[in-house]
Amino acid sequence: MNIPQTSFPRVVIIGGGFAGLAVARGLENQDLQVVLLDKHNYHTFQPLLYQVATGGLEPDSIAFPLRKRFNDIDNFYFRLAKVFRINDEDNEIETSIGNLTYDYLVIATGSTTNFFGNKNIERFTMEMKSIPQSLNIRSLILENFEEALLTSDLEERKKLMNFVIVGGGPTGVELAGALAEMKKGILPKDYPDLDIRLMKVNLIQSSNCLLKGMSDKASKKAEDFLIKLGVDVWKNLRVLDYNGDVVETNGEDDFKAATVIWAAGVKGESINGLKPECVVERAARYKVDEFNKVVSSKAVYAIGDVACMNNEKYPYGHPMMAQPAIQQGQLLAKNLIKSLKGKAMKPFVYNDKGSMATIGRNKAVVDLPKWKFQGVFAWFVWMFVHLFSLIGFRNKAVVFLNWVYSYIRFDRETRLIIRPYKRKNKYSFENDK
Amino acid sequence: MNIPQTSFPRVVIIGGGFAGLAVARGLENQDLQVVLLDKHNYHTFQPLLYQVATGGLEPDSIAFPLRKRFNDIDNFYFRLAKVFRINDEDNEIETSIGNLTYDYLVIATGSTTNFFGNKNIERFTMEMKSIPQSLNIRSLILENFEEALLTSDLEERKKLMNFVIVGGGPTGVELAGALAEMKKGILPKDYPDLDIRLMKVNLIQSSNCLLKGMSDKASKKAEDFLIKLGVDVWKNLRVLDYNGDVVETNGEDDFKAATVIWAAGVKGESINGLKPECVVERAARYKVDEFNKVVSSKAVYAIGDVACMNNEKYPYGHPMMAQPAIQQGQLLAKNLIKSLKGKAMKPFVYNDKGSMATIGRNKAVVDLPKWKFQGVFAWFVWMFVHLFSLIGFRNKAVVFLNWVYSYIRFDRETRLIIRPYKRKNKYSFENDK
Repeated sequence: MNIPQTSFPRVVIIGGGFAGLAVARGLENQDLQVVLLDKHNYHTFQPLLYQVATGGLEPDSIAFPLRKRFNDIDNFYFRLAKVFRINDEDNEIETSIGNLTYDYLVIATGSTTNFFGNKNIERFTMEMKSIPQSLNIRSLILENFEEALLTSDLEERKKLMNFVIVGGGPTGVELAGALAEMKKGILPKDYPDLDIRLMKVNLIQSSNCLLKGMSDKASKKAEDFLIKLGVDVWKNLRVLDYNGDVVETNGEDDFKAATVIWAAGVKGESINGLKPECVVERAARYKVDEFNKVVSSKAVYAIGDVACMNNEKYPYGHPMMAQPAIQQGQLLAKNLIKSLKGKAMKPFVYNDKGSMATIGRNKAVVDLPKWKFQGVFAWFVWMFVHLFSLIGFRNKAVVFLNWVYSYIRFDRETRLIIRPYKRKNKYSFENDK
Repeated sequence: MNIPQTSFPRVVIIGGGFAGLAVARGLENQDLQVVLLDKHNYHTFQPLLYQVATGGLEPDSIAFPLRKRFNDIDNFYFRLAKVFRINDEDNEIETSIGNLTYDYLVIATGSTTNFFGNKNIERFTMEMKSIPQSLNIRSLILENFEEALLTSDLEERKKLMNFVIVGGGPTGVELAGALAEMKKGILPKDYPDLDIRLMKVNLIQSSNCLLKGMSDKASKKAEDFLIKLGVDVWKNLRVLDYNGDVVETNGEDDFKAATVIWAAGVKGESINGLKPECVVERAARYKVDEFNKVVSSKAVYAIGDVACMNNEKYPYGHPMMAQPAIQQGQLLAKNLIKSLKGKAMKPFVYNDKGSMATIGRNKAVVDLPKWKFQGVFAWFVWMFVHLFSLIGFRNKAVVFLNWVYSYIRFDRETRLIIRPYKRKNKYSFENDK
């Protein structure tokens, strides 16, 4: 892949998400060669994917070109590549653009949707872990309404206007809230000849509370907010199957729906090649020690969602969120530099800064370590934190502008079917030109 | 297609471009039913497509949702549909979503790329008439550079970094200028390990001047600007063929290039069904009288690029640009209302407000009827006019913000491969997830 062999040790980082960026940033201008690989040429700000999916933001405003992030750094190489296999014995990886040796390997591949082995669900539901996937959801929502207009079959129309979101974590909650706001503010205006009351937004959660991991108060309040917005919240209900037509559950209710969004689970985006004992099989995450080194590997580290570091406080590893990823990346960079200088590494201790979720206009929940609050102020805090965390001045400015516009005008203007989504069931669009 | 039959006459408009929007706007709140059909659910601001293609703007900022444009208008119906055939005898059209009768039909389908029957050129070159096509070009430019990094074959690398733009009209000139600016400002920073001097931007024009239809001074100055930016301008050179590898010309120079953008011609996007005598075959445009009525049709009108109204001043019809389209649309709306009231229609007279093209930062050419100027002031005029013509406050604001940012930072930040372009030749990417 045309990367020069120098006398400096080579650190290869797989993945330019929060964790990968943090470690790469921390290794700048050291006596190291840093190679960053990603299957996209941009960093994705995942927390705002749901706004791309619901026509509130343009994709380009939550993506940041990885090359730009590092284009003033010496000894830094970016390559657009997929990694197929890790050869721990030979310190080598196999990728879509050839093999590469490393002195240190940092796996920061993040997470992917977990369908728990159900092939039907994998085939027929929509996922929302990347920008193209979010754009598919955006297209599909709008295509549904265009189609609902055309059918004279009421059952069919109901099905097209019935949205099922599986999973009551932040993704599910935020998406359900945004869809409900589209139902309230935009769709009745855009589709005056359609009975928008037929539109249903269902949020299905298998356990008895939403936003697991947040406080009871946040969970309760989020549910109240959703219900107020008109979302049908189904708790203690488990989705068993979906054939593109009907969502089968373990309860009395089945759902006839043309669109199901699967936000019920993630797993590590692990790569083939490491020994079985390196991986927590169920979660597809790498077992790492307190320095994020993959157990029983030679020189492989894993950080962020794909790493599972368990200790007393986090028996199943840290939450798969941005904060642990960033903190692990930052510490690993420091530790690698220490290790090169022959100094002892520092073990990772997660500094939980809290978590938050937004449900809609003026409606958010925030859990800080010492203060939990909900409502308008929480919503402004949520916006400020997300705006501040976005990479790049232009992205911040464009997102800010969109938010101000949406707030004043009660609008989401990027409701565009740029690339139609080709459904895998009987409906299909073919205008991809 | 579920459109109610009322006692009002039905006007069906095909196409939501400049012409279609103008006529639909002019028919608002009349005793008419208006049905607008388009294969996209948005209006495309075509003059800025080249900025989407070169990473300067996000696609969402030059697209405007058609439903939003009309969502406060009674008796207005939008349908996402492709029209396959016109049945003039029965006042009926056949579409992808069923048949529809009309009292008046307005064809405003615009234009499409003209490959002049060359199947190779159609298969292997890129076109830039729609947003998805522009995004394909954006992806391809960036993919080329990613690939050029990987090859150790110098010839191959040169080919990947060689861009050929065929056609010296506004599209070709503006795209060549933008690519040359990428070469100057962005690519050397993003690809420090690549010899950017290998990158060539070739603009090929079959006649002896660029920007045909503009003044000699504008044409000459545009060429100067391009040369100053490092574009290789080839005049009096005709492209004969392209096999995905080599551009064959009628001159001594053939071009080995992985990317050829075809901006050498457009033709009307005409629809099957009307009598042969209604169509100017070579240009695929409808012959219309001075009221934009398609000759020897019953109740079919054509406006904009797809209409060919020839008179002494415009023996081959009006230029295929936004201004004639908008003016014809506005007049046709008035004329249809007049006709319904039994009044006489007014013939169309084109008010030529002038034309302009931008080549790069501080470099544009403007021909007004009484004043022709070039350079910095022309560039500001160009920007102001385009910003002003964009539909929607949000789009204007986002574009303005991008331009200010680019101007201050010498940057184009949306250099993102959101959906990789799958080449039809040997190179191919497969990360479409």
